[in-house]
Amino acid sequence: MKLNLNADVGESFGAWTMGNDAALMPIVNSASIACGFHAGDPKIMRATVRAALAGGASLGAHPSYPDLAGFGRRPMAMAPVDLEAAILYQLGALAGIARAEGGVLTHVKPHGALNNQACEDAALADCVVRATRAFDRDLILVAPACSELAAAGLRAGLLVALEIFADRRYTPQGTLVPRREPGAVIHNPVHCINHVRRMLDAGGLVATDGTLRKSAIHTICVHGDNAEAVDTARALRAALEADGHALDPLPDVV
Amino acid sequence: MKLNLNADVGESFGAWTMGNDAALMPIVNSASIACGFHAGDPKIMRATVRAALAGGASLGAHPSYPDLAGFGRRPMAMAPVDLEAAILYQLGALAGIARAEGGVLTHVKPHGALNNQACEDAALADCVVRATRAFDRDLILVAPACSELAAAGLRAGLLVALEIFADRRYTPQGTLVPRREPGAVIHNPVHCINHVRRMLDAGGLVATDGTLRKSAIHTICVHGDNAEAVDTARALRAALEADGHALDPLPDVV
Amino acid sequence: MKLNLNADVGESFGAWTMGNDAALMPIVNSASIACGFHAGDPKIMRATVRAALAGGASLGAHPSYPDLAGFGRRPMAMAPVDLEAAILYQLGALAGIARAEGGVLTHVKPHGALNNQACEDAALADCVVRATRAFDRDLILVAPACSELAAAGLRAGLLVALEIFADRRYTPQGTLVPRREPGAVIHNPVHCINHVRRMLDAGGLVATDGTLRKSAIHTICVHGDNAEAVDTARALRAALEADGHALDPLPDVV
Amino acid sequence: MKLNLNADVGESFGAWTMGNDAALMPIVNSASIACGFHAGDPKIMRATVRAALAGGASLGAHPSYPDLAGFGRRPMAMAPVDLEAAILYQLGALAGIARAEGGVLTHVKPHGALNNQACEDAALADCVVRATRAFDRDLILVAPACSELAAAGLRAGLLVALEIFADRRYTPQGTLVPRREPGAVIHNPVHCINHVRRMLDAGGLVATDGTLRKSAIHTICVHGDNAEAVDTARALRAALEADGHALDPLPDVV
Repeated sequence: MKLNLNADVGESFGAWTMGNDAALMPIVNSASIACGFHAGDPKIMRATVRAALAGGASLGAHPSYPDLAGFGRRPMAMAPVDLEAAILYQLGALAGIARAEGGVLTHVKPHGALNNQACEDAALADCVVRATRAFDRDLILVAPACSELAAAGLRAGLLVALEIFADRRYTPQGTLVPRREPGAVIHNPVHCINHVRRMLDAGGLVATDGTLRKSAIHTICVHGDNAEAVDTARALRAALEADGHALDPLPDVV
Repeated sequence: MKLNLNADVGESFGAWTMGNDAALMPIVNSASIACGFHAGDPKIMRATVRAALAGGASLGAHPSYPDLAGFGRRPMAMAPVDLEAAILYQLGALAGIARAEGGVLTHVKPHGALNNQACEDAALADCVVRATRAFDRDLILVAPACSELAAAGLRAGLLVALEIFADRRYTPQGTLVPRREPGAVIHNPVHCINHVRRMLDAGGLVATDGTLRKSAIHTICVHGDNAEAVDTARALRAALEADGHALDPLPDVV
Repeated sequence: MKLNLNADVGESFGAWTMGNDAALMPIVNSASIACGFHAGDPKIMRATVRAALAGGASLGAHPSYPDLAGFGRRPMAMAPVDLEAAILYQLGALAGIARAEGGVLTHVKPHGALNNQACEDAALADCVVRATRAFDRDLILVAPACSELAAAGLRAGLLVALEIFADRRYTPQGTLVPRREPGAVIHNPVHCINHVRRMLDAGGLVATDGTLRKSAIHTICVHGDNAEAVDTARALRAALEADGHALDPLPDVV
Repeated sequence: MKLNLNADVGESFGAWTMGNDAALMPIVNSASIACGFHAGDPKIMRATVRAALAGGASLGAHPSYPDLAGFGRRPMAMAPVDLEAAILYQLGALAGIARAEGGVLTHVKPHGALNNQACEDAALADCVVRATRAFDRDLILVAPACSELAAAGLRAGLLVALEIFADRRYTPQGTLVPRREPGAVIHNPVHCINHVRRMLDAGGLVATDGTLRKSAIHTICVHGDNAEAVDTARALRAALEADGHALDPLPDVV
């Protein structure tokens, strides 16, 4: 069975560094690259595109609300006409840099508060989808399994890569357990692997109380915040390959 | 003889308005559109692209140093690697928005301090040219006649549209008389038209002291800051047409 | 009876101009000055402080969410610890500029979405009040009559100047009729004056259906967006003086 | 003999961390705090003020050109009237936050490109001094020994704390050896201590070729970029105390 590992990368800015892209890039198959609105400046975007292409990862845009100071994690009330144009702007900016490096964007994955809100608000999800389609009808939308964002993408005829998180637990409603609650984040690599295997075996999201919400699963999001996270990503990749999964860039999986 | 009229447009931002794009757009053949670094936000960029397409003007990017507060008019010392990526980012952002509207970029014209510095500094001019070529070898570079920027574009094999200003006088060295000097800006529409006709007839820049610097002339920059400027642009267009010039979008002129 | 006229000023930014401060400043008694987060850059803030001092208006800060592109009109979810620090930053910045001009801040009036949300959300109102008190316990808080913001200020022992709008109608709940509804904004100067007189006579907010919500009234907000608005402000001032009101800076009224 | 150790702190931004303020703050006597233009957001500024006050360090502002993406290290051509207001804005913003914490600013030290340019350009130095004096005539200006900035401060009657760098070598002209040249930065802690002792003993800057430029020395700048830098700062402090120097906040030294 074909699967994809994706990571959010290029989240440094100017003189500030975040994450460990160099370690993570050889592990993942697809890179979701910050576009300057929550992180990433043009030089960092270009270096990240180069690293992704060198590692064979497919390129995606990781657009955000315009909020550097809040790292795109603060809900904002943008008018749909503003948001749609802001997403187009970010897709284009990254595509322009990718083009200079001989690469092409193949997916879009909203960041932070924009992603969280689009997972629950159908109108906002439609706005994200509208911008994506207006830019390129063949772009793959990466959306959490069982979300309004995924539903909006499918409704509009986009290719949708349904995503689960290796290190986050789910509520019976299919949403992420909020970070402030105990057990929301899984730190033990073995537990992460078991969590992913359980969902792949069951064919859907498995909540903390065992509730199953059926869904196809195309891609697994891994993190690179620290050395431990990179180790977990590497171990997960090895485990999935041992299970017989082919790990491929997004265009080969969806 | 084919000629082009171009204008810098889309220079509003958020709640603030600048210029009179609606009046200017039907007069010009090519629109150089702000890309968010000195002016223009994504919504304004999209509206400007729509207006240009509706009026039949060809689309160009008007990239700048990142300086909203200074309107891109303040010289900055950006490392070439930063500047090149910043220009790619802006070209891509506008191209993404244009693409959503069914349009395509056909020219690049640097803004403000970036343009002024690239007209005198060959290394900076090369940086602008490098970014332009990396994005699209077929883009037309709009550059002031007799400038280092024009020379750099030609050296690199770009199509270069050589530009004169209808309302600005020239020094014997072929640079603009600085705004702070008396007579730098021509306000009288008839004088603007005479100024342009003199340069077209002579085949080059005609300085305040009569010095001629030979150059091809492809495009004339007009402004829309106020009602008078729009009237001048309209009168200039009529005069050039009366002289038998065909006024066309840039791709038909260069 | 003592009354105050206040206006939101200094809302230009960089090369962009907004409002007609020069015409409005001689009419009002107190100036609420943008602090750089929704509008106003340091040079504009300094020029605005000078103009206010020259006209005898008392100085106040008009802090906002950090949102230049949205002019501070978009609701944002800032953590209280972030918002409190952001307000302190803005109060300090304006106070620093005022100090260089020999002036001193005497009031605070939140802007746009921050103000609207603080009028309805007691926790947010408390955050605004906490920042105000932390900066200076003697600052006057300008808050709409009958709002949560006013209640929070009084609860904390601040001096509160209760504000009505000359050109906006009220709902029976004491909130502004939303701008998108017909009749929300009063354009006719005579109607504005009658609207204010009715509320002053009744001693509170008078809604569109005649409902009265009793409240003291200390200050009336006027606008200067266009020539008509300035004329209305001037006519209102004359009418109030004809009615025997003394129009004074805020510290003399509260 | 009284001496001061100062450090540039509060240079994180939003979700990004820089430096090791927690380790450095107990070592230094004075903190130069970023004011949001090159680094530092309001929440970080407040936390930094608290940490400085808790550690007994005196508070200073570290104003910059407006350039988050370039960390204030890129020369910019700001008009003096803009720069003066921008410095006032930053001084005020930090003073407002300090005031809420019961602290008061006692010094100013320009950051990055602004500092470098003001060390060589007397007109720019005068602009920094003018802003400082306009804010508070009693503020201490921290300026590199033998710089135009120091000269401008003394000319204007400001208290000036003359500064040397523990880990940077000097040219015979009294400027820092540029970072790109070999040996510009001293990494070995013992060499740093020897470098400082040599300059204190000689009573001035000692260049790489042994040239001495006489100057009083009031304060030594130390860094906290990494664990090694913090160790160097700690060792320098111990060495200076062993030599019999009293290490005190700036107001006790100048």
